[in-house]
Amino acid sequence: MITKALSSIALDQNAGASLQTQLCLKLKAIIEAGSFKPAEPLPSSRELAKDLHVSRNTVIAAYDRLVGEGYLEAKARSGLFVTSSLADLKHLPPHRKGTLSSADPSTKSPVPRLDTPPPFRPCQPDVRLFPLALWNRMRSRSLKEHGSRILHYQSNFPAGLPALRQSLAGYLRDSRGVRCDWRQIAITTGSQQALFLLAHLLLKPGDRVLMEDPGYLGARLAWNSAGASVQPAPVDENGIVPSFRESPSPSLVYTTPSRQFPTGACLPLARRAALLDHAAKLSAWIIEDDYDSEFRYTRPPLPSLHSLDSSNRVIYLGSMSKVLFPSLRIGYLVLPDSLVDKFSSLRAVVDDHGPLIDQATLAEFISSGAFYTHIRRCRREYVERLSTFLRAAEHTAVPLVFPHTDGGMNLMGLLPPGTDDAFCSRELKSAKLDIPPASRYAIKTTKPGLLFGFTAFDHSTIRNLMRVVADSLSFAIKKRSKVIKCHQSRFRTGG
Amino acid sequence: MITKALSSIALDQNAGASLQTQLCLKLKAIIEAGSFKPAEPLPSSRELAKDLHVSRNTVIAAYDRLVGEGYLEAKARSGLFVTSSLADLKHLPPHRKGTLSSADPSTKSPVPRLDTPPPFRPCQPDVRLFPLALWNRMRSRSLKEHGSRILHYQSNFPAGLPALRQSLAGYLRDSRGVRCDWRQIAITTGSQQALFLLAHLLLKPGDRVLMEDPGYLGARLAWNSAGASVQPAPVDENGIVPSFRESPSPSLVYTTPSRQFPTGACLPLARRAALLDHAAKLSAWIIEDDYDSEFRYTRPPLPSLHSLDSSNRVIYLGSMSKVLFPSLRIGYLVLPDSLVDKFSSLRAVVDDHGPLIDQATLAEFISSGAFYTHIRRCRREYVERLSTFLRAAEHTAVPLVFPHTDGGMNLMGLLPPGTDDAFCSRELKSAKLDIPPASRYAIKTTKPGLLFGFTAFDHSTIRNLMRVVADSLSFAIKKRSKVIKCHQSRFRTGG
Repeated sequence: MITKALSSIALDQNAGASLQTQLCLKLKAIIEAGSFKPAEPLPSSRELAKDLHVSRNTVIAAYDRLVGEGYLEAKARSGLFVTSSLADLKHLPPHRKGTLSSADPSTKSPVPRLDTPPPFRPCQPDVRLFPLALWNRMRSRSLKEHGSRILHYQSNFPAGLPALRQSLAGYLRDSRGVRCDWRQIAITTGSQQALFLLAHLLLKPGDRVLMEDPGYLGARLAWNSAGASVQPAPVDENGIVPSFRESPSPSLVYTTPSRQFPTGACLPLARRAALLDHAAKLSAWIIEDDYDSEFRYTRPPLPSLHSLDSSNRVIYLGSMSKVLFPSLRIGYLVLPDSLVDKFSSLRAVVDDHGPLIDQATLAEFISSGAFYTHIRRCRREYVERLSTFLRAAEHTAVPLVFPHTDGGMNLMGLLPPGTDDAFCSRELKSAKLDIPPASRYAIKTTKPGLLFGFTAFDHSTIRNLMRVVADSLSFAIKKRSKVIKCHQSRFRTGG
Repeated sequence: MITKALSSIALDQNAGASLQTQLCLKLKAIIEAGSFKPAEPLPSSRELAKDLHVSRNTVIAAYDRLVGEGYLEAKARSGLFVTSSLADLKHLPPHRKGTLSSADPSTKSPVPRLDTPPPFRPCQPDVRLFPLALWNRMRSRSLKEHGSRILHYQSNFPAGLPALRQSLAGYLRDSRGVRCDWRQIAITTGSQQALFLLAHLLLKPGDRVLMEDPGYLGARLAWNSAGASVQPAPVDENGIVPSFRESPSPSLVYTTPSRQFPTGACLPLARRAALLDHAAKLSAWIIEDDYDSEFRYTRPPLPSLHSLDSSNRVIYLGSMSKVLFPSLRIGYLVLPDSLVDKFSSLRAVVDDHGPLIDQATLAEFISSGAFYTHIRRCRREYVERLSTFLRAAEHTAVPLVFPHTDGGMNLMGLLPPGTDDAFCSRELKSAKLDIPPASRYAIKTTKPGLLFGFTAFDHSTIRNLMRVVADSLSFAIKKRSKVIKCHQSRFRTGG
């Protein structure tokens, strides 16, 4: 009964794929090669199992799968047959025939490992501090509470789950003085999506965006993707300098007032007021990216721009990536009423809505107070790492000055004037350190510096690697000045 | 010791907010109103607790939170004080002063309930069939396996987790004959995001897209968002008619060959070949939206366009929304090699990458075989609902013809020629039934019809509501023909 074709099957107990999968693939290859006659029934599972020296369950499961996928069909009282209409498959391009039996070549190529942030990559929270077990319990509770509703499409809520938007409205009111109706809150899959959606909501090709320089690259990409051009705004030790060119006037101003990215400056109240005045005069939107506002170590928070705005032109942007964990992919916007419906329409085209189970869990996490507890815990831990970092920097006498050490997750270390920070960053890279140069974030020239993240790394890592930083930097600065001197002397001698 | 300001605090044991939250808000309001002198220490937690008749822990927790948020600061051996630099807050706009103590007005407005799909809304899976407990166990296993890495940014993988892309490559190879390296698979947050990203990857303003008419609205929105214009392609009982106008020639063809949306037609092999030939001649991309391919009840699958394509111009699109559950928000693309890097760059601007824990869980779900088991289970259940639906339709003699009943989650019911399907759909809406008209999906005129989903509803619901459908339709058709006769007679008499 076992046909010649089937007798060619050989299964490998030690292969990566299960016997069932191997059998499926080989049967498909035989069927697709046309070696099996449609009129002839397949052997019973018992027979084939005996012949192949595998358990009968393996054959039953393989047959079941092939019936499910339409390769085989059962005929009453006659057994299993190759599906009659599979004669069509003779039209298959020749390159495909017989290939199904071979393993997927791609599974053999090495798979890249997931990334763990190398020191001192900026903007990385210590995800080991996150109370994952508690989060998972709240997730189970949310699933029970919402029942199957939470699994359905909720296309009525492209801006996110109402429960989460309410919890966030409470948090923003308590912590940042942002007063809004929950309907003004729009959940996004992170701050990058928020920026992208705002760009396409507010800008048209040729519009101008005033943006801190140096500033956040992801934002610049978003404005450019909408066809807008970026007008750099100077940043000094107090953050963005609120001087607008009136013509051509910008449609939008992007700023990180709580802690300027990447310099770390905090925008004083007077400048906040001036920024609001200017924007009102020019009818420009302000995007307040309240990046890093949760982590303040010495000073109380200044009121958010949103809380100071009386003309509804500030759009507040926040993210859970750094407060909870980055791969959660939840960010949010506080929109003026006039943009709420437009946002929903755009979101319906871009991706309908975000994943909802995580949103329901986060709502519970915030309203239970666990969110506040977690932020406090991170703050306590991060302020200690900050002090370890600064002590180590002092101890190893790194050639860096840190002007803003009162908050956030990153420290901008200024290099001696004239140093090539990109060159230094490359030298550090060869020591497996990821410390980007200030110039990477700048359109015009900026003070040379290096941006360190300190929050994701242990005290011992910080201490040990600061020595490597110090050595690499001294070496890089000397090497560079030699190269420059050499160039200069060649220039003088005309060589 | 208790100051006059503090003595005004009244807490409500029966309020929605906890005593701790109420106390926090009232203390903030007092601080922001400037009623509290910076030089004066706050009462001890013991004193305040006694005075307010609450537990001491409540006061300690509230104080702790206000210290965390920067409102209070501890001074060694002197107790807690209002943070000295909060003097700045006198700049607060008057509208904000004292408002923090009142509850958020928005929390009092009613929150809309989450949606459960009303009968017979199309494209809704029965999420109650989903093995959520098993999924949750696999989620826990993935979290253990990946450790904290899975919580970090993985900006190296904007196209998604390698493990998931490998599992999907295996599934697509086994089930749809799609052969690709896992690096060609890009994970998206659903098919809408996939369409949006493709539109912005492949089209420039003014380009033309050939699209099935009637066809999927979400796709039309995506093409339009990139500034492209849509050229309707006729659809007959065998799906898209592969006749291209050569000038202006389209840059992209969008089709749903497994089961045309919304008509339900399956594209025969000869047309698949013709479509590929035409597209190759015009150097157009083909987007194969393999919508509903998992649910076939009577016939085996035809090979996907992707598996027949030898010129790398077919982009395959799939979604987990209907196979697993919609709010998961996972879709995927199979891209030609030439688009892989461009896709990643675009994704980095649009939203960086999707949530990773779900992706890791799905990888496990597929590679364990649970995915196949679930699809088979749904298929068995859905085919029974389909037969209940068709029996009920026959029994109630609904004035509809169902030409394609061999697969999918929806049935297009054709109305008698000349019927106004939008009018019928509105009549059904007033009976709380969500059954969209065929004309909603069409650019040119189309055969009048109504699109029913049958997969998310119980047998008894299907049977009971088919009676309502039949009655509403007979009523609507009579009413409409009366209106038309009336118009005609008025026209004849010149009235």
